[in-house]
Amino acid sequence: MNAIAEKFAKLGVDHAPGQEVRQKEEELPLIGNPVEGSLVDFSHGDVDAFAPVPGALKLYVDGVNAGGCQAYTEYRGKKRIREELAVSLANFTKAPIDADSELILTPGTQGALFLAMGAVVAPGDKVAIVEPDYFANRKLVEFFEGRIVPIRMDYMAEMDKAGLDMGQLEKAFQDGVKVFEFSNPNNPTGVIYSEEEIREIAALAEKYGVTVIVDELYSRQVFDHRTYTHLRAQNILDPDRLLTILGPSKTESLSGYRLGTAFGSAALITRMEKLQAIVSLRCAGYNQKVFETWFHEPEGWMEARVLAHQNIRDDLMKLFCEADGISVRMPEGGSYIFPCVEDLKLDIRVFTKVLRKLANVIVTPGTEFGPQYTNCFRLNFSQDPEAAHAAVERTIEIIKRYRV
Amino acid sequence: MNAIAEKFAKLGVDHAPGQEVRQKEEELPLIGNPVEGSLVDFSHGDVDAFAPVPGALKLYVDGVNAGGCQAYTEYRGKKRIREELAVSLANFTKAPIDADSELILTPGTQGALFLAMGAVVAPGDKVAIVEPDYFANRKLVEFFEGRIVPIRMDYMAEMDKAGLDMGQLEKAFQDGVKVFEFSNPNNPTGVIYSEEEIREIAALAEKYGVTVIVDELYSRQVFDHRTYTHLRAQNILDPDRLLTILGPSKTESLSGYRLGTAFGSAALITRMEKLQAIVSLRCAGYNQKVFETWFHEPEGWMEARVLAHQNIRDDLMKLFCEADGISVRMPEGGSYIFPCVEDLKLDIRVFTKVLRKLANVIVTPGTEFGPQYTNCFRLNFSQDPEAAHAAVERTIEIIKRYRV
Repeated sequence: MNAIAEKFAKLGVDHAPGQEVRQKEEELPLIGNPVEGSLVDFSHGDVDAFAPVPGALKLYVDGVNAGGCQAYTEYRGKKRIREELAVSLANFTKAPIDADSELILTPGTQGALFLAMGAVVAPGDKVAIVEPDYFANRKLVEFFEGRIVPIRMDYMAEMDKAGLDMGQLEKAFQDGVKVFEFSNPNNPTGVIYSEEEIREIAALAEKYGVTVIVDELYSRQVFDHRTYTHLRAQNILDPDRLLTILGPSKTESLSGYRLGTAFGSAALITRMEKLQAIVSLRCAGYNQKVFETWFHEPEGWMEARVLAHQNIRDDLMKLFCEADGISVRMPEGGSYIFPCVEDLKLDIRVFTKVLRKLANVIVTPGTEFGPQYTNCFRLNFSQDPEAAHAAVERTIEIIKRYRV
Repeated sequence: MNAIAEKFAKLGVDHAPGQEVRQKEEELPLIGNPVEGSLVDFSHGDVDAFAPVPGALKLYVDGVNAGGCQAYTEYRGKKRIREELAVSLANFTKAPIDADSELILTPGTQGALFLAMGAVVAPGDKVAIVEPDYFANRKLVEFFEGRIVPIRMDYMAEMDKAGLDMGQLEKAFQDGVKVFEFSNPNNPTGVIYSEEEIREIAALAEKYGVTVIVDELYSRQVFDHRTYTHLRAQNILDPDRLLTILGPSKTESLSGYRLGTAFGSAALITRMEKLQAIVSLRCAGYNQKVFETWFHEPEGWMEARVLAHQNIRDDLMKLFCEADGISVRMPEGGSYIFPCVEDLKLDIRVFTKVLRKLANVIVTPGTEFGPQYTNCFRLNFSQDPEAAHAAVERTIEIIKRYRV
């Protein structure tokens, strides 16, 4: 196998959320009869249960009607839209953003993450990645031929902090890590880093000259009025080595429009624009218009939506906590729950297929978030509350059959 | 400067179409007074002059109203849409396409080109690129750390063929070129490869085991009923080593929706999907719905549109041919004219800035298409006919001032 065939052989999507339809039929170790119930796909949020922000489609239509000036924008995005967003994002993250030089609009936050990693990771570079964390992080390092340095997060150890192993992080930085990328709230566990943790990450990165990419995709969906700390507001790390990523695909349910942003270091944003010019030219022109709804949701809309998710979280967590042999931390933000099953008889990749077959429930295997999570799975609980409740009951029923 | 900084220093966008707004003010060698006239931006087509296919927006709205099933599709695109497109594209390119394994939907044809090059170019690989050809081709090879092997196209030598130097192409293939990428109709000259040329390219690629990527973006806009030859219909090159790229951004004016496709080798499409999963997940979900208009334009709509472009071509070409010291070949397809100015006193990159200042006309410097085109520029003539006519008159007036 030549080098590029090998590279793509490692870059799997078969277990990625939404790709289940492409899995081949295979012999599964089925125990017992199916538990009837309508399909719930926990691999991503259900935008039919939680609809896009009102007014998004109207803005889109306005964009199309605006014609050429909206179809062809600068690669980094339309100037007027960047100017408005820079104000909203600076206000939200509590640190200034220059609309002209420090902000880029991208096709979704996945687009932002790809460009950011492409802008900073050279072949052979060491990149620190939290375990568990968003699966694309590791894939991106591999694609750009960097070397992953995993950093343990003991998220079950203590409440009120994420549990990142700071000793391991400093050791990694000492050993030459160039880039540190992490999500906050963490995907898949939903834990939020404490202020102390964020400040310590910033201080270590400053001390060792590390570039930091913070994926804050879920930072507008924080529960129980918990404190959220934006790294860029701390004034500890040189802003030239910091990128923050945010977009309206999750809480705002605008994923179908593919909108994302990255902001921070002007030098890195310039690189990202150069890369975007050959990747996809720009965030789709008409779609950019929909950014105008972001941070301008109707009064009370965001609060209601966050509360609705908090209620689903509470309901599902009660089910998991009352079940035998499942360990799970209470998510503090975002729409994910990450249960781990003690004494599971199957590898989680097989279990998720069994679960789909027997219970009509789709979840994402834990191994997508770190190789060691062979008994964990992730649910996106942005779903119809009753359907989600029933699906978790079915899931727990199936789990019982497969414990030692 | 470290490796990645150097890489991005080479990857320029300052002279790319649409980026003129980001150029810094500078001292220009201005001669004479400005020639008054309203701004014409020849760097890309004017979708206000040539509006998107009727019905596109309605389909988009249907897509949003369809909800989650349209927002979250497989990374390679929604199955039903792929099935319909596979039929249309197979019919158009005269060779079969398996919708399940041989087709991917991407954010624009730029997205398809990026994924295709990413799927086949490993660091150090030799990649043959035509000169002149689309500027992103060279940038993509550089980004993926391949080595460019330029192939001369003497497009002024003979009519009824593109003029690709087949001796040079075979020599390059003998010398270990892995990939050959070219556009047909050629961007920026508008020439169409003859059937003999296409078959010879296919035969050489088959003989030397080269993978071929054909960018057929403008293949639906062919003038004077000229014959167009699809490489994939020739049954010469192993289809496992061939990708064809096509999208509705140009003649169909759907660029603002960012829609593109690649089809061919199932193995390469699989790689492209893996890459798309970390680049931007998918072609924006709702946008995919707009593909349904493609190859289903209203009766007579495409013919009228192509004829309208042919008329603009004829009008502008008459102006260029009557002017002194300008050599230009009649475009046979697409929306580009590529005039070269004899005895131009300025480098074309400076001239284009002067032209913008003195005549309110934006063109793309020839050097974007090959380093040797220091006296050529490209116009996209998909513009309001009268505005384009006046702008070319102004351009010729300015050219007079800057010839030796």
